[in-house]
Amino acid sequence: AHKFNPSDHPHRRYNPLKGDWVLVCPHRAKRPWKGQLEPAIEQTTPRFDINNPLCPTAHRPNGIVNPDYSGTFVFDNDFPALLDDVPVPDKEDNDELFQTSPAEGNCKVMCFHPHSDLTLALMSRVEVRAVIDKWAELQEELGKMYTWVQIFENRGAVMGCSNPHPHCQVWSSSYLPNEAEVKDKKLKEYYLKHDKNMLLDYAERELKKQVRVIAQNEEWVCVVPFWAVWPYETMLIPLRHTLRFNDLTNKQRDDLVDIMKTLLIKYDNLFETSFPYSMGWHGAPNNSEDNSHWQLHALYYPPLLRSATIRKFMVGYEMLANQQRDLTAEQAAQRLKDLPNIHYSCKKN
Amino acid sequence: AHKFNPSDHPHRRYNPLKGDWVLVCPHRAKRPWKGQLEPAIEQTTPRFDINNPLCPTAHRPNGIVNPDYSGTFVFDNDFPALLDDVPVPDKEDNDELFQTSPAEGNCKVMCFHPHSDLTLALMSRVEVRAVIDKWAELQEELGKMYTWVQIFENRGAVMGCSNPHPHCQVWSSSYLPNEAEVKDKKLKEYYLKHDKNMLLDYAERELKKQVRVIAQNEEWVCVVPFWAVWPYETMLIPLRHTLRFNDLTNKQRDDLVDIMKTLLIKYDNLFETSFPYSMGWHGAPNNSEDNSHWQLHALYYPPLLRSATIRKFMVGYEMLANQQRDLTAEQAAQRLKDLPNIHYSCKKN
Ligand SMILES: O=P(O)(O)O[C@H]1O[C@H](CO)[C@@H](O)[C@H](O)[C@H]1O
Ligand SMILES: O=P(O)(O)O[C@H]1O[C@H](CO)[C@@H](O)[C@H](O)[C@H]1O
Repeated sequence: AHKFNPSDHPHRRYNPLKGDWVLVCPHRAKRPWKGQLEPAIEQTTPRFDINNPLCPTAHRPNGIVNPDYSGTFVFDNDFPALLDDVPVPDKEDNDELFQTSPAEGNCKVMCFHPHSDLTLALMSRVEVRAVIDKWAELQEELGKMYTWVQIFENRGAVMGCSNPHPHCQVWSSSYLPNEAEVKDKKLKEYYLKHDKNMLLDYAERELKKQVRVIAQNEEWVCVVPFWAVWPYETMLIPLRHTLRFNDLTNKQRDDLVDIMKTLLIKYDNLFETSFPYSMGWHGAPNNSEDNSHWQLHALYYPPLLRSATIRKFMVGYEMLANQQRDLTAEQAAQRLKDLPNIHYSCKKN
Repeated sequence: AHKFNPSDHPHRRYNPLKGDWVLVCPHRAKRPWKGQLEPAIEQTTPRFDINNPLCPTAHRPNGIVNPDYSGTFVFDNDFPALLDDVPVPDKEDNDELFQTSPAEGNCKVMCFHPHSDLTLALMSRVEVRAVIDKWAELQEELGKMYTWVQIFENRGAVMGCSNPHPHCQVWSSSYLPNEAEVKDKKLKEYYLKHDKNMLLDYAERELKKQVRVIAQNEEWVCVVPFWAVWPYETMLIPLRHTLRFNDLTNKQRDDLVDIMKTLLIKYDNLFETSFPYSMGWHGAPNNSEDNSHWQLHALYYPPLLRSATIRKFMVGYEMLANQQRDLTAEQAAQRLKDLPNIHYSCKKN
C-alpha cells in the first residue's frame, strides 16, 4: 500500500568498495537510552606539559628527549606494532586452517603542532598545510620501502587515543592490509568492467545529486557516502585522478586545507565538542602494477550518534551479523551541511 | 639469525571463516596507557526496579506491563531495527554505485531471569538450561519464517548494552547478513575441496594440539581461535555435526550448560569483574539448500585487554587497514585455562 521511503523504512545499501551491505534503520533513533555515557571530553588540556611524551623537550618513555620543535615532528613509535627485520614464520606447516604469514613494517608518530591544546580544526591554514606536506613527504619516503603506508589519526579518548596532543600515526607494512586488499579488488573489477575509475564516477554522480555532499571546492568533494556505516561518516575525494598522497599538486593541497578545515569545524560544531573520530588515507599500493583503478581518498569514522556523550556502539548484531545505522546518509549530510563554518569556540558571547 | 617465535615476533594469521588476516603483535602489550578508562562496572544493580522495563511487572515505554515472569521472558523489541511488511525499494534505479535492497525482519528481546543482579555466569544450571531451551525454541519458530535468526547478547555498558538486566536479543531477517554470507561461502569452499566440514576438522585439530583449548567435555570444545581478533575471544563448537541450535540433543544441551558456565566464570575471574562481551550463535541459514558445510558455533567477543577498566580499542589502524591484537591466542588461552572454575564472588573470605 505505502511507497518505499528511504528516510522511514529499513533497507540495506551496498558498499561497492567493500562488496558488503549496511542495514539502514532510520526509525530507530527514537529509542530511549539507558546505556553508557562517554566521559565528557577534557576541555582543559594544558598547552604544554613536560610529562607528556609528545610535547617539545619532553622525555619519551625510552629516555629520548624531544627536540623543541615548532611545526610538525615525526619520530619512530616507541612501542611499534610492526618491526623491520623480524624472523619470519617458516612455511613448513601448511595446514590451511593454521596459516601464518610474515608481517614486517614500521610505525611512526607525527605530531601536528607543538601545542597540546590544539586540533586540526583549530590550527591555522598554514599549519594545516604543513601537516599535509609532511604527509606527502612520508608517503613518498615510506612508499619506496613498503607496499602499504597507512596514515591514520585516532582523535579523542573514546577512539582509544592514548594522548590528547594533536598527532597521527603512520604504520607501513610489507603486506597489503585486509581493507586495502578488498578495495584493490573491488576498484579493479569496476575498472575492468567500465573502463572508468569507480571513485571518480562516484564523486561525479554525488556532485550532480547534491544530497550527500557537505562541502566542495575546485579540487575536492566531501560526502557522507551512500553506504556510510558510522552515523556521521564522511569521505574526501579529489576531483581529478590522483593515485597517492604525494601526487597532490600545490593547488590540490591548498584546497584540501580548506575542505578539511570546513569538515572538521562542522564536526566540532555538531555537538559543540571536540569531535572524536578515526580517519585515514587510502591511495594506490606502492607496487609497480598498473594502479589506474585507484583514487586517493580520506575516510572519517566518527563514533558519536546523538550528543557529545552518546555514541553509536558497533556491537552485538553489528559484530556478529551486519553493520547497522540509525539515520540515513542523507539525514547526516543535511545536518552537517547546515552547520556553520565557524568554530563554536570562536563565537562572540 | 634468530628463529621465528610466534609469542615474540609480529606476524599475521589467516581466518579461514572470513578469508582475512589478523595482525598479531605479542610484544606490544608492554606500552604504557594514558587513554580512556572504562567506568568501573556497577556492582550494585538492584535485583528489582519497577522503572527498569525488563523487570517483571514493570511498564515498558509503549505502556505494556510485563508479566510477573519467573523464568525466561520473550517479547517483541519496542524499538525494532527490523520490521515486517515494510514497503520495499523498487528496482528501477539500478546504478551499481547506489544499490538499495529490501530488509524485512523481526527483533525480539529475551530476558534470562527475573532478577536484574544476575548474569549467566551466576545463574544455576537449571536456569541456564532454560535459556538454552528457549533459544532452541526461538530458532525453531523464527527459522520457519526468516533466512537468518541472529541470537546475540551484548553484555556490559562498555558493549553498548543499554540495560544491566540479564537478557539477549534475537534479530531475524529476510536476508543473509554480511557475516553469515561470507562464512557460508568459506565453509562451502572448504567442503567442496575436502569433502569435510571445516569446523569439525578445526575442532579435532585443536583437541589434538591442546594449546588453545580452554575447556572441553563430551559434546563441546571451547577454544581461543588461532585467528582470534579480540584479546580473549573464544568459540564454542559442538563435537558432532550440528546444523542449527534447535538440533541440539538433550545431552548436547546439558553439556553446553557446563561449558558455558565454565567459560563465563573464567571470564569473570580474569579481571574479577562482570566480564563484558558481545556473543552470538551462528548456524546454517534457514533455507532448503544442502547445508552440510555448516556447523553450529558460538562466538564470544570480549573487549577487555589489560584489566577491568582497560579495553582494546579497534580503531585507527584496525578500522582503516587491518585487525590487530596485542597478545597471542595461545597466551590468552593459557591464561583463561589456568583460572579457577569457581566464581570469584563465591570465594570465602
Ligand atoms: O538494542 P540495544 O541494546 O539498545 O542497542 C545495542 O545493540 C544493538 C544491536 O547490536 C546496536 O545496534 C546498538 O548500537 C547497541 O547500543
Ligand atoms: O597507538 P595507540 O594510540 O597507543 O593505540 C591506539 O591505536 C592503535 C592503532 O589504531 C590501536 O591498535 C590501539 O588499540 C589504540 O588504543
